[in-house]
Amino acid sequence: MSKLSAGGSIRAAVMSAPGAPIEVREFSRPTLEPGALLLETIYSEVCGTDVHLHDGHLAGVPYPIIPGHVNVGRVAETAGEVTDVEGEPLRSGDLVTFLDVHETCGKCWYCLVAKATTRCPHRRVYGITYSAQEGLLGGWSQAIYLKPGVKILRLPENLPPERFIAAGCGLPTAVHAIERAQIQLGDNVVVQGSGPVGLNAVILAQLQGAGQVIVVGAPALRLETARALGADVVVDISEYDPAGRVERVRALTGGRGADVTIEATGNPRAVREGMQMTRDAGRLVVVGQYTDLGDTSFNPHWDINKKHLEIRGCWGSDFSHVYRGVRVLARYGDRFGWERMITRVYSLDEANQALADVADLKVVKALIQPGAGK
Amino acid sequence: MSKLSAGGSIRAAVMSAPGAPIEVREFSRPTLEPGALLLETIYSEVCGTDVHLHDGHLAGVPYPIIPGHVNVGRVAETAGEVTDVEGEPLRSGDLVTFLDVHETCGKCWYCLVAKATTRCPHRRVYGITYSAQEGLLGGWSQAIYLKPGVKILRLPENLPPERFIAAGCGLPTAVHAIERAQIQLGDNVVVQGSGPVGLNAVILAQLQGAGQVIVVGAPALRLETARALGADVVVDISEYDPAGRVERVRALTGGRGADVTIEATGNPRAVREGMQMTRDAGRLVVVGQYTDLGDTSFNPHWDINKKHLEIRGCWGSDFSHVYRGVRVLARYGDRFGWERMITRVYSLDEANQALADVADLKVVKALIQPGAGK
Amino acid sequence: MSKLSAGGSIRAAVMSAPGAPIEVREFSRPTLEPGALLLETIYSEVCGTDVHLHDGHLAGVPYPIIPGHVNVGRVAETAGEVTDVEGEPLRSGDLVTFLDVHETCGKCWYCLVAKATTRCPHRRVYGITYSAQEGLLGGWSQAIYLKPGVKILRLPENLPPERFIAAGCGLPTAVHAIERAQIQLGDNVVVQGSGPVGLNAVILAQLQGAGQVIVVGAPALRLETARALGADVVVDISEYDPAGRVERVRALTGGRGADVTIEATGNPRAVREGMQMTRDAGRLVVVGQYTDLGDTSFNPHWDINKKHLEIRGCWGSDFSHVYRGVRVLARYGDRFGWERMITRVYSLDEANQALADVADLKVVKALIQPGAGK
Amino acid sequence: MSKLSAGGSIRAAVMSAPGAPIEVREFSRPTLEPGALLLETIYSEVCGTDVHLHDGHLAGVPYPIIPGHVNVGRVAETAGEVTDVEGEPLRSGDLVTFLDVHETCGKCWYCLVAKATTRCPHRRVYGITYSAQEGLLGGWSQAIYLKPGVKILRLPENLPPERFIAAGCGLPTAVHAIERAQIQLGDNVVVQGSGPVGLNAVILAQLQGAGQVIVVGAPALRLETARALGADVVVDISEYDPAGRVERVRALTGGRGADVTIEATGNPRAVREGMQMTRDAGRLVVVGQYTDLGDTSFNPHWDINKKHLEIRGCWGSDFSHVYRGVRVLARYGDRFGWERMITRVYSLDEANQALADVADLKVVKALIQPGAGK
Repeated sequence: MSKLSAGGSIRAAVMSAPGAPIEVREFSRPTLEPGALLLETIYSEVCGTDVHLHDGHLAGVPYPIIPGHVNVGRVAETAGEVTDVEGEPLRSGDLVTFLDVHETCGKCWYCLVAKATTRCPHRRVYGITYSAQEGLLGGWSQAIYLKPGVKILRLPENLPPERFIAAGCGLPTAVHAIERAQIQLGDNVVVQGSGPVGLNAVILAQLQGAGQVIVVGAPALRLETARALGADVVVDISEYDPAGRVERVRALTGGRGADVTIEATGNPRAVREGMQMTRDAGRLVVVGQYTDLGDTSFNPHWDINKKHLEIRGCWGSDFSHVYRGVRVLARYGDRFGWERMITRVYSLDEANQALADVADLKVVKALIQPGAGK
Repeated sequence: MSKLSAGGSIRAAVMSAPGAPIEVREFSRPTLEPGALLLETIYSEVCGTDVHLHDGHLAGVPYPIIPGHVNVGRVAETAGEVTDVEGEPLRSGDLVTFLDVHETCGKCWYCLVAKATTRCPHRRVYGITYSAQEGLLGGWSQAIYLKPGVKILRLPENLPPERFIAAGCGLPTAVHAIERAQIQLGDNVVVQGSGPVGLNAVILAQLQGAGQVIVVGAPALRLETARALGADVVVDISEYDPAGRVERVRALTGGRGADVTIEATGNPRAVREGMQMTRDAGRLVVVGQYTDLGDTSFNPHWDINKKHLEIRGCWGSDFSHVYRGVRVLARYGDRFGWERMITRVYSLDEANQALADVADLKVVKALIQPGAGK
Repeated sequence: MSKLSAGGSIRAAVMSAPGAPIEVREFSRPTLEPGALLLETIYSEVCGTDVHLHDGHLAGVPYPIIPGHVNVGRVAETAGEVTDVEGEPLRSGDLVTFLDVHETCGKCWYCLVAKATTRCPHRRVYGITYSAQEGLLGGWSQAIYLKPGVKILRLPENLPPERFIAAGCGLPTAVHAIERAQIQLGDNVVVQGSGPVGLNAVILAQLQGAGQVIVVGAPALRLETARALGADVVVDISEYDPAGRVERVRALTGGRGADVTIEATGNPRAVREGMQMTRDAGRLVVVGQYTDLGDTSFNPHWDINKKHLEIRGCWGSDFSHVYRGVRVLARYGDRFGWERMITRVYSLDEANQALADVADLKVVKALIQPGAGK
Repeated sequence: MSKLSAGGSIRAAVMSAPGAPIEVREFSRPTLEPGALLLETIYSEVCGTDVHLHDGHLAGVPYPIIPGHVNVGRVAETAGEVTDVEGEPLRSGDLVTFLDVHETCGKCWYCLVAKATTRCPHRRVYGITYSAQEGLLGGWSQAIYLKPGVKILRLPENLPPERFIAAGCGLPTAVHAIERAQIQLGDNVVVQGSGPVGLNAVILAQLQGAGQVIVVGAPALRLETARALGADVVVDISEYDPAGRVERVRALTGGRGADVTIEATGNPRAVREGMQMTRDAGRLVVVGQYTDLGDTSFNPHWDINKKHLEIRGCWGSDFSHVYRGVRVLARYGDRFGWERMITRVYSLDEANQALADVADLKVVKALIQPGAGK
């Protein structure tokens, strides 16, 4: 805990508006309200969502913000007893992560009747929907202020922070998508997209006993990573047109198409391709359409009704997805080597470069290490 | 069994080609192969599918055909012991129906691994995919030849043939759709479309404990029937534009949209409307897109992903849907009065008029009574 | 609001210890903490659980208690803005009910990972696990203190309080059991037990489209009520031994047994009978074993494994069950006439008589009307 | 195909009655009816069921029988075109397996309405319910007569017959059990029993992403194999009494018990232990109670109802389980090394020794190699 001195200031990277360069600012160390916790950040990640934030593609973002929604760090200070999800008190130095989603109300119709807490209208998200004026509520900062009630999870002993953050935000998202996908032992699984969500889905499909995992994506760097993580076949979208991709998947699946397809692309047209790549009576999970990039078309007769297809949108993640992700990382981390997704680690001062590299797909996964550099 | 004399001929209505008028022809009474059964038809129905057949909108139809896929009749003759699904031998005079789908193979990948028998590539359908040259394999005929292995179901004593045929083909289709819909007690349910499938869905939604059933359809005659069958609210599509319909449904559902929507319209654009009428984390069953009427558009971000929506295509029906439909008719028939769906009964010689009336939506349900008339 | 004068005292029936007679005591009207609400009780119910409480069969009960866990009343006072589950502010005079279960934590492993909130170790229950020393936290009282955060539901306009309380605690319990039962259209359903949970299950099974509802229970009064509520067949356990009951059910279900059985008896031996009454690959929901009445036996080979049986325990209920129950009461109340379950209404001073009558099965449903009498 | 000469006789091991020694007899090579296939056996297995057969613990067995229900071999002869499940014609020399269950009717109530084909009353099983007088209908024989319609599956190129038979009958059984178990990513899974079904479940639990796999079994040889196959913890039942085992599992699972328990023991008392080892709102699959070994006890309140437990019996397997098992073997065979389960290979003449070794738990898996020896 050398960096965070009791009276010292805290450096954080601030995105002041869409398009504006990220600036590192100094904040004074906050006083904790009862039940709050100050976390010294070890790593935060740079996720595709951060590029969307910088491009201004998300509605309702209270700029300026401190980005960084998935993070790992050590407890620096607690105000009174603060416990993890097992009810165990947290101590200074404990290695933890936390659920970026906070303020899920637990008392509205969506929480209580629909039991769809990821659609609770009161939820707010660290690094995305909290303003920097409200505090250190994002991970691109030397310290993060965990408000009372934030859900905190201790990392198991055999899970180093590098491995956790390599999996990053893509892991709970993929856990949620896989939960919706209901893969059966031996299924043919197509993953559309080879970004962090897609790559985590490649691993998790194997942890569901898929009989074959096919990745449809780009560019070469990511497809190589997909292969290293266990994908049986990769289909480079720069080498096939949409019809050719569908044909390729069918050829690999006995002419029928995939039993389950997981769309994780960000490209609207990929959804129809996903319908067409999936076999009759199969299942398509749509998890990659995180922002509005316009309408697209499909044929309700051929693509849904006659196909007896099931399509499941998948939004956000809840604490169980983080928890299950961490369990899987701890149990199967040596087998899959999530760390190979990390291309480069950046200091706070290099945040603009990090964002640019993610936007240009130059990296698989970019990390921010707030304690590094200057 | 007065009409079918042993040596006499059998009259049947034949659709010789798309667009050609239906003609009544005489066939000689067939000799039964072992395990076959001859059924004297009491009623067959005229279904929207028959209009599609006449318009040439279905691929792979082996014209000339004898239409009529859902039928009820009395056993006229059996070749050896023929049993119903309970294993009970059938006798002359027994009142039965049968599953129009035949030759589901039970040994292909779809039957055995996917367990999606309605997608078995070997299945054939009475009244649709059998040619008149292959025999009396449709219900617009004084008698129907039930091949060995056709799945036969005895009507319970308290189920008159009029009630069975009033429910018609729409009932097993709706049973299948409702099975996919997984309505929970108290749910708000929207049914898009007020034809026979939609009207059966209105009844079945109540038999699943829906808290409110809203029908979005036309014309007035069908909406009145929907109301008589228990719909809480009807929304006439001639009075609202698509956005207005969505707004109306939201206003009726606490601003959220329906928990479950069942699309049974035949109009491609209704699918997107259905997505928009359904609440976040709700479910949309697409059962009405029976033929290819072109592409349509949607927004993958708003309509599926952020909405966390589940969409389920629903194709065909299997024996369990007919069986469950008959059980429901027998138990709840007095409550719902399915018979009120019957607008008019036609003789074989009036088949052209019947088709025209269905095409023009002049009737809710048109029946063919092959023993009537001449 | 005539009974609760601003400075007046509040009468409540107190169970001071197992076996001790219920006494009516006077409490001073409480001062509300911010977010709390005072409810003037219209009706509370006397449930089998109250008999268990009086017999001392439940562990961890903090006697003295004010019994009465399911209640309906009018808002007498709020401390600041208090809202219902739709987020609408509550006003004096509003007719409401509330979820008896409170303090479900929303942050433990059971709440967050297992998503099994009815097993949250922090939950407490009005009328059962709150002491009278903690306040007016049970319904056998002229007023109930609703702590901040208690989940409140407004009754729809067409739902009179008599109908709500007639359904009582048995309704959400049965909604939960039916949710676990996954009845399919046309299924044969056996309900073991004809108390309030069983009778509500009889209704709900019909609202799931059961093809036949068979009740196995006693005494005659309750079986008559079952029949009036729509049961197709009742089997009086005083007329059949256990083997005879199983045989009777099989005879009514084509020799196979029920598709779904709902055990709601309170008798340990009924569980094995339930296994035997259910068909191969069917489902048994165990909801009636609310207290420990000892071990019982079964044969794992015949009763579970070879039978491919599914058995589902069902504990407690959550807000969604109350919400769905109220929706169903509002929509289908006229059809089923829940009120016929009410045998007698008692004043606070008659609470001992009410308990005795429930214990002796002299009544189907006994109500407490705290505003009545003296 | 050297061993099976066209006119030569075929040696098979016959179990003539319970308790009688197995004898090798000579049969004449059968003439094939159209659609039949003769398979030259490479391996058959000796399964716990064969011990039950020899002990006379199964009802309705038509002794004398040729045991051996899971088998792998090469096509020796076909009568006309015989196809595999993909519809591909089979040729002499093709390496295949087949579903031991035959004559599932596809037309009874269980097949059509319940869709529970493993409970079809017409099904018969190679090596168990066919008499030797009906033909070469078991695998402890140089050749097996595959009747028309037997479901045949080609082994993928990368799946050697040793690996397939090492997995044996336990694999499809475990695939079925795992399907019923619905393990979620990161779950704590207990497997009760360390025989072939239990060991396959250990592997499959990992292929479902279990967070921890605990095996409760004996003897040491099998527990060592469990560990080699990836079990995280083994609990030797000879070292703990039943209460101690439950306590041990709770200690390993945060005090809560397993999320999912798979009972695969053959001991009736293990079922209650399984209930107690499983957490509240968890799931117990009962697959090990293959024969009637008497009644046992449980407490319906604590073990099922209050626990909100789900118990699922699991009987038999269908073609999809064999198919999925083979897919998993082909994809993950190198990772798990199923072959380590094979302790010893026996010739037909050593069948008595093989049975004795299995009965005495001296081996993990015993194989019969009909072409070996004499």
